[in-house]
This record gives sequence, C-alpha cells and structure tokens, in this order.
Amino acid sequence: MVERFGRRIPEPTVVRLPLYQRVLRDLALGAVATVSSAELASACGVNAAKLRKDLSYFGTYGTRGTGYDVGYLLGQIERELGLDRERCVVMAGMGHLGHALARSPGFMSGGFRVVGLFDVAPSVLGEIVAGTGVAHISTLPDVCRQTGASMGVITTPASAAQDVCDQMVASGVNAILNFAPSVLVAPPSVHVRHVDFSAELQVLAFYQAHPEPAEAASDLGAGLIL
Amino acid sequence: MVERFGRRIPEPTVVRLPLYQRVLRDLALGAVATVSSAELASACGVNAAKLRKDLSYFGTYGTRGTGYDVGYLLGQIERELGLDRERCVVMAGMGHLGHALARSPGFMSGGFRVVGLFDVAPSVLGEIVAGTGVAHISTLPDVCRQTGASMGVITTPASAAQDVCDQMVASGVNAILNFAPSVLVAPPSVHVRHVDFSAELQVLAFYQAHPEPAEAASDLGAGLIL
Repeated sequence: MVERFGRRIPEPTVVRLPLYQRVLRDLALGAVATVSSAELASACGVNAAKLRKDLSYFGTYGTRGTGYDVGYLLGQIERELGLDRERCVVMAGMGHLGHALARSPGFMSGGFRVVGLFDVAPSVLGEIVAGTGVAHISTLPDVCRQTGASMGVITTPASAAQDVCDQMVASGVNAILNFAPSVLVAPPSVHVRHVDFSAELQVLAFYQAHPEPAEAASDLGAGLIL
Repeated sequence: MVERFGRRIPEPTVVRLPLYQRVLRDLALGAVATVSSAELASACGVNAAKLRKDLSYFGTYGTRGTGYDVGYLLGQIERELGLDRERCVVMAGMGHLGHALARSPGFMSGGFRVVGLFDVAPSVLGEIVAGTGVAHISTLPDVCRQTGASMGVITTPASAAQDVCDQMVASGVNAILNFAPSVLVAPPSVHVRHVDFSAELQVLAFYQAHPEPAEAASDLGAGLIL
C-alpha cells in the first residue's frame, strides 16, 4: 500500500481513482463547476461514504453545502494517478486481443503512448497496427532503451508470458499489465497487474449463486462494481 | 456484500476466489493432495494471512502441520463460485474485442457457454465466430428466452452500451460484464462488473508515481495484484 499524508492508501481506493477521474472529466467537459459527494458517488456507482473516505486519503474533503470543486479535484486525481506526464508503453503478443487493444481508442488515451508492438509470428511481423509496426520481440530491449518505455502490456499466450515478462523487466519496464492466463513472477520493485476475463465471469457467477438482500445489493451502487 | 456463516464476504475476497480456483486446479492436475497456506499463498501471489482469512469465510481452516486438502478445497471454491453448473452467456458487440473474447479459449472455459453473439453491423452479421453465428441484436430476447441465458458480455462502443444493457436486462440477464467505457445503470438485482483496460494502466501509473518501500511492495505478493 502507498502512504500519503501518513495514511496508507488501500488498493481498492487506488483502483477507484480512474473511475473518479473519468466521471470528473465528463463533468468538467460539461462545464459543471461543483459537485456534491452524493451526486459524484451516484455518477460513479459507489456509495457516498466510500467516495468521501477515498478522497480524504488525498486531503480532499469538499465544502459542506457546496461540494467539491470539479476542476481542482480532477487535477488532483490526475496528479495522483501520474497522468500529468506521458508514459511510453510496449505491447507483446499481437493476436486478436493485441490487435483489439492497440486499435482501441480508449485504451492508450490519457497520457499513454504505444512505442512498440512485438510478436514472433512471421504472419504479423511488419504489419502496421494503429500506426505502429509490429517488430520481433528480440528488438524489445533496443526500443525500450531508445524510448525509455517503463510500461508493458502482455497479450501473448500463457506459455510465452513469463519469458516476455522477464525480457521486459530486463529492458527497464517496471509496470506490467498482464492479459495472459498465468501468474507472473517479477521482482518486488515491478508492479504487475493481471487482467483475467474468465475470473470476471466467475465473480459474476458467485454473485448470481449468492443473491443478496436488496439493501445490501445497493451497497454496490447502481449495479456497478469496480 | 454476501453473507456466509453469518459473516459478510467482502468483495476483494470474492475477486480472489477465481485465482485460488485456478491455482488449486493446477495443483490437482499435478496430483498434489495437500498444500500449506504458505505454499498456496505464494503460488497465488497473495500473503498467507490474507489467504487464510479469505478461506475462513467459507468455514475452511486447513489442518495445522498438514495444510489444506487440495481436492476438497477446490470443490468447495468451485461450488461457492457457482461453477458446478453451466451458465449460458450472450455477447453483444462483435468488433475486435468481441472477436478476441469469443475466440479466446480461456474466457468461456469452466462452465460458461456462449449461446449468442450479437451486433448490428451488416459486415459481421452471419459471420461464424468460434462456432456461433453473429445475429442481429433484435433477436437477443428470443435467444435469451430459448436458452435461459442469464449472463451478458458487452463489447460495444460506449454509445451503445446502456441500450444493450437495458435490452439484456429486459431479456432476463441478471449479470453483465461490461467492457465498454461507460458507467451502466441497472436495477440493484442485476450485477454489473466493469472491465476498464485504461483504468488498469492508470492504476499502474499510480504505483509508478508512488514507489513504495521494499517491504510494503512485498505485500503485493510476487508483483501480482488481483
């Protein structure tokens, strides 16, 4: 956990920050100047007490009767998320998912720039995907050195994921988003997040198998869990 | 939160169950009969105290000196996850991501069966993806009625997601996995999980922007956060 103002910030709070950022950005684009915690919580699909607690980690309490200053809060969250500077990202594994992610307008928006797409299959090497050519994985170290890329996305099959992870770490990448269905081993200084789609379905199946009383369900906001 | 043995099961615990299930299944396939909480925790990339706490919600404590019975624990977690029966899944939005997910061997494994793929674009209607034909979204209610599908996956653009969500809910779907970058509004009885790839990158950016002391980082397991 990360410490801030002497308090440790729990991971679930960190995970909700991008949601707050997205909703606040939409409010700012709509020229909304202030928002109450109840309104903001509702738009984010979380409960208001949780939202206030989350924001209090950053020393932000809003003004009673007025609420939060949208622009100020947005800037603060974007700074916390480190979105105030561009990050160079490399991606390995240009199958269906790699193509989908590289072409997704939202995935890399907001401060992330793809500087390299990698694979080993001759059928995709040299292909231009969303403006970037697919290169052989053996060129990963050079690209990382030239661009200073510090983030990696792994969309390879499970069998290749650990090897690609090791190569990324050796090339200076210290934050990895892993879509392959395998648990990666990396040094403690490297942050690895694992996105497991089938696990998401399983969590939904859990909640289907354990229907909740209506009041408890409303804790989850308007059906949204992040 | 879901109650079990009189205790509420926190969502982070639920979210870790699929990870435990996957690791236990691999152990079972490897003919491992018992596993200590330390070994299991390490293989899952979580700390052992957290693992013991998670499993205690299900009345499972293991045997001191011997550890957990792999087969028994696996069966118990699969029952908790509702994986002991097949669930029919419909998916709307057959762009790159929809194709990637429908073709992913892992996504629908373990008790999930795709019974319908939907879109509105003439260019994909009728296409066979992983054995299922892409149908017009207007046929969704019929397919749900005929198959009893209760789970939906939304991979449409953001602008179409709420409309598709409403149609799924009206067709009896009560668990939705949303990949579109929009907050969906659904009745409290419908569980919606939102997968936001760009948010995953932002969370990584947060941890990059807030490097932790080495001991704290090891709380995250072998670099794995789930």
